[in-house]
Parts: sequence; C-alpha cells; structure tokens
Amino acid sequence: MKTSLGAKTLASPTPAWVVCAYDQAGKATGATIAWGGICCSKPPCLAISLRAATYTHGCIMARRAFTVCIPSQDQAAVTDYFGMASGRDADKFAVAGLTAAKSQLVDAPFIEEFPLVVECQLAHVHELGLHTQFVGEIKDVKADPGVVGPEGRINLESMGTVLYAPGSRQYFGLGPLLGPGFALGGSYMK
Amino acid sequence: MKTSLGAKTLASPTPAWVVCAYDQAGKATGATIAWGGICCSKPPCLAISLRAATYTHGCIMARRAFTVCIPSQDQAAVTDYFGMASGRDADKFAVAGLTAAKSQLVDAPFIEEFPLVVECQLAHVHELGLHTQFVGEIKDVKADPGVVGPEGRINLESMGTVLYAPGSRQYFGLGPLLGPGFALGGSYMK
Repeated sequence: MKTSLGAKTLASPTPAWVVCAYDQAGKATGATIAWGGICCSKPPCLAISLRAATYTHGCIMARRAFTVCIPSQDQAAVTDYFGMASGRDADKFAVAGLTAAKSQLVDAPFIEEFPLVVECQLAHVHELGLHTQFVGEIKDVKADPGVVGPEGRINLESMGTVLYAPGSRQYFGLGPLLGPGFALGGSYMK
Repeated sequence: MKTSLGAKTLASPTPAWVVCAYDQAGKATGATIAWGGICCSKPPCLAISLRAATYTHGCIMARRAFTVCIPSQDQAAVTDYFGMASGRDADKFAVAGLTAAKSQLVDAPFIEEFPLVVECQLAHVHELGLHTQFVGEIKDVKADPGVVGPEGRINLESMGTVLYAPGSRQYFGLGPLLGPGFALGGSYMK
C-alpha cells in the first residue's frame, strides 16, 4: 500500500542545469533550473522551464536563444549559486569567477568552465502556469575533450553529473554503472 | 577549447521512467522514456515525450491520462525491458511479472512494485516533430512507505534512482550526496 504525498513536483532524477542568456545590455546571465529535459529527437529539442519573475526569463524572450550549461560533479556549489542569486542584482559570472563565452551559433553565452554545453534556438514558448516552458532546438552540443569518449559519446564516468532531488532539496552525484540500455532488459524478451 | 559533437540529444542527467496507460481494451501497458521532466510548479506538471509510432502514445491520446512510474536502482533491467518491447506484441506487465494497479484519480494504471508513482491528467499536447510532448497535471504522487522520509519527502538514498545516459546508452545509479540546495552556493553570496 502506497502513501499519498499529494499533488507535488516530486520525481527523480531531475537535473541541475544553468540556463544562460544575454540581457538587453549584452550582459551574460544564467539561472539554475531543475525543471527540464530533452523533449524531441528530430529536430533535437530540449525543454527548460522558468518563472516569468526570473531575470533570465525576460532575456530568453527577447533574445530567442539560450544555452544549457551542464556542470561536472565538483561544480555543484557554483551551480547552486546560480539558482540563489538574481541577475538583476548581481553579475553572476563575475561573482562566480566563470567565463561567459559567446556562442557562435545562437545569441547566448555559455559557461566556458562547464564540461558540457547545449546551444539552443528558441522554438516554442508554452505558458503552463507559474512556469513558462521554453523549447529550444539544439544547434550544437559542445564538450570538453576530457569528457568525450569513443565515437563522440559523453563519458559520464569521467565527467560526473549533478542531479537535484526536489522535496529534500539535495544535490547528488553520479552512481554506479547499472548496465547497457536496450540490452539489460533482454532477459525478459522471448 | 570545446569539441563540437553536433546537434544531438545529449544532456545529463536524463531519467528512466516507465509511462503507463490503458489501451482501448483496458489492458495496461507502458513505455520507458528518457525524454521528460518536471515542467511547472503551479499547477504541478510533468512532461514526457513519445513517438507517435509507440503503442503508449495512442493510449494516452485516447485516455487523456498516464502515470509516471519511477524505478528503484535494482529495477533497471525491467525498466529497460519496458523500453525494448512493444505493447502491441506483448503484455509487458505479465512478462515482467509486475502488477498493474488501477489509479483512483486518473484513467491509467501504475506499477505497484515501483517505489514512486506520479499520477497525471493530460493537460497539453505539443507536437514537436518526431516526438509528441504530453504535459500532465500531477494529481498525486504515491510512494512506498520505505522511501518516504521526514515531512513527506522522498528519501532518495533509500530508494536509489536510475538515470539514463543518452549517447552512451547506459544506466547509472545514485551517487554521493553533494550537499543541500539553496545553501551549498552560499559562499558566493555577499
């Protein structure tokens, strides 16, 4: 018998991603989000949600572009900082000592020091309630050479990952390899 | 200098969730997805994407409801199976030896043996390309008592989690606690 926890935003895993954009003055800013995920394979798209009250929300609406900057496991603290401060009050890149690199593909900055970056052109805006969902078409994925494995795959074990646990509000790292997809379940196939 | 990997669906973490629905005959079926995430806090909503070719896609369109069933770490193999087989050819619940419990809130089944279940009423359908994004309003979250911690929070450390790595097509488990959200980044705040 299961326990009812109510109509709450509880699920696992959810990511800890820093969504970056330029403001009207051309200053790079970013916000950490846990509400997001890949949402389409062709065209490749990713969705992230932001409240209209956030500074980054207005930047994405105006510039029609954003990047998703994915931290390694040892960058959890600076990732958390990007979710605590507001770009209205602070130059988060300067405070964090991070480099805002200019994307050559979309009108948005990315965090040079983060190992994995997804460059997105805004494709759809869905008003869902408190949050606006931005669907971005992925124009490129850029990675530090050290986290790229054979055949251009991400070597997650060398990068580590950061996941956010809603409810308990905790960050966790990458755990053990459980097995290969589209293979592990083979024992159930006839 | 970063390496360009192309316009691909690479991000981390992405989930491994089994989306469950009833078909026209009332048979419970489900499909494992990695394209999804929470997308709104108020009303609480979650988004999952499926190709129109999948059996579960038609079920959700017809029944306007689904559940997201979240496995524990030792259920990765059966989770993978739900992504390998099609509900057109197999009674996945029967093959997997899992129980399809009937949700009392939405017209969809859930996997009784999975520790965390999110019951969703279909709220929006977004055609994005190869994938359709279904936004479900969360009506309740149900959990096994053993994974519920203080104040109705999920104890992720007792549950474990399964994350899917696109590209390398691997499943990974939960790693170490990195720290508390909205606190870890405090050292950067003035």
